[in-house]
Amino acid sequence: MLYIVGLGPGSKDLMTQEALDVIEKTDTIVGYATYVRLVQDMLKGKELVVTGMRGEIERCKKAIEIAQTGKDVAIISSGDAGIYGMAGLVLELASKADQHIDVKVVPGVTASIGAAAALGAPLMNDFCHISLSDLMTPWDVIKDRVDAAAKADFVICLYNPRSKGRPNNLHEALAIILKYKSEDTVVGIGKDVARKKEIEKVTTIKDLDEEEINMTTIVIVGNKNTYVADGRMVTPRGYTL
Amino acid sequence: MLYIVGLGPGSKDLMTQEALDVIEKTDTIVGYATYVRLVQDMLKGKELVVTGMRGEIERCKKAIEIAQTGKDVAIISSGDAGIYGMAGLVLELASKADQHIDVKVVPGVTASIGAAAALGAPLMNDFCHISLSDLMTPWDVIKDRVDAAAKADFVICLYNPRSKGRPNNLHEALAIILKYKSEDTVVGIGKDVARKKEIEKVTTIKDLDEEEINMTTIVIVGNKNTYVADGRMVTPRGYTL
Repeated sequence: MLYIVGLGPGSKDLMTQEALDVIEKTDTIVGYATYVRLVQDMLKGKELVVTGMRGEIERCKKAIEIAQTGKDVAIISSGDAGIYGMAGLVLELASKADQHIDVKVVPGVTASIGAAAALGAPLMNDFCHISLSDLMTPWDVIKDRVDAAAKADFVICLYNPRSKGRPNNLHEALAIILKYKSEDTVVGIGKDVARKKEIEKVTTIKDLDEEEINMTTIVIVGNKNTYVADGRMVTPRGYTL
Repeated sequence: MLYIVGLGPGSKDLMTQEALDVIEKTDTIVGYATYVRLVQDMLKGKELVVTGMRGEIERCKKAIEIAQTGKDVAIISSGDAGIYGMAGLVLELASKADQHIDVKVVPGVTASIGAAAALGAPLMNDFCHISLSDLMTPWDVIKDRVDAAAKADFVICLYNPRSKGRPNNLHEALAIILKYKSEDTVVGIGKDVARKKEIEKVTTIKDLDEEEINMTTIVIVGNKNTYVADGRMVTPRGYTL
């Protein structure tokens, strides 16, 4: 069996019972070095296959090869493995392989949900997830999605908001959002959620400091009704209180 | 302390370690009867405050009152408490209360993530969540969001897709989606995910049987690239394989 396991945002506290159980019972673990470090105290005595950044295809192929020998293997990633994670790639490659293997996806708490809980309750009404990484999706498609989401007043969770290689994507996305939303729209930032350096900040589009945002940050842009209650970001569900 | 705890989709396996720990150490648990049943074996000897459907405001007020006496209390809901759940309402009411209380939101695996893992990997590219319940959001606003999401080719997760009181909302939503997406677009259905009666089905918009859909079902409509690999629903991330 090949397990695809989402570890949650960072701490063992936010792993599911099933993810903990699978890692405990599986002898061979495949993962990117950063994810392996997140759970390293659980990996003593196990066979580890650790690959570098952008080694996604290699990692999946190795995990499939190991499973084809009849061994149980778990490929781990942070958050939920099915959200911009490894699950799709494993299923795509497994379906093309000559030898059939069994695959099970073990869900996890994705970064936006971890950040939202730390920030308050920003996702109480309709929301969307958009990755601002244009490595694999054309930038024009991403911009159209930002436009559509802002126009229809979704709460917007931005994944991969800003990196050294893409310093301006967040700025361009916010400029599109400002066509429809006020510059006073509440914005929540969750940086390294559930990890040692964790930072949360509730601000507005106008006051957002883009320099603070990196690839381990989730940016949540509120809808027209999102407000700040006791320092927390809250999107009302619509109850009459 | 008032804890707002997301239980995950249904089984204890998909609860986070933190949710399990909080329920174990907290003497007073507040919840809707169905959610209390999900974790009833953990509740022996605890004080339970159980309310009926649509008792959301009453439930939150009771939990806040208990926390104001200095006791620890946990208000539980299924999935993630911050996604169409209780977290927003608790924070809204707590911020209006005369006496301050500490509130902590404990995140969970929301229904769409549980369903997605069971279906394959449909959420590997940009996606949105739309609730088709128009109890608290005007139907015109919801329809505009469905239109925007379909036009920009998001994967679309539909919450509360169909009930006896709203038998036609799903049909109307699918008619809007068909303005932009082919009737052969892949659709995944997750019904009672991680519960005893769990059913998953991968179909298309054309072949979807609306009669099968109820309030404990999540409907995931794919994007233009979503396909079926070995019976599973996969949205490619865009790697060149």
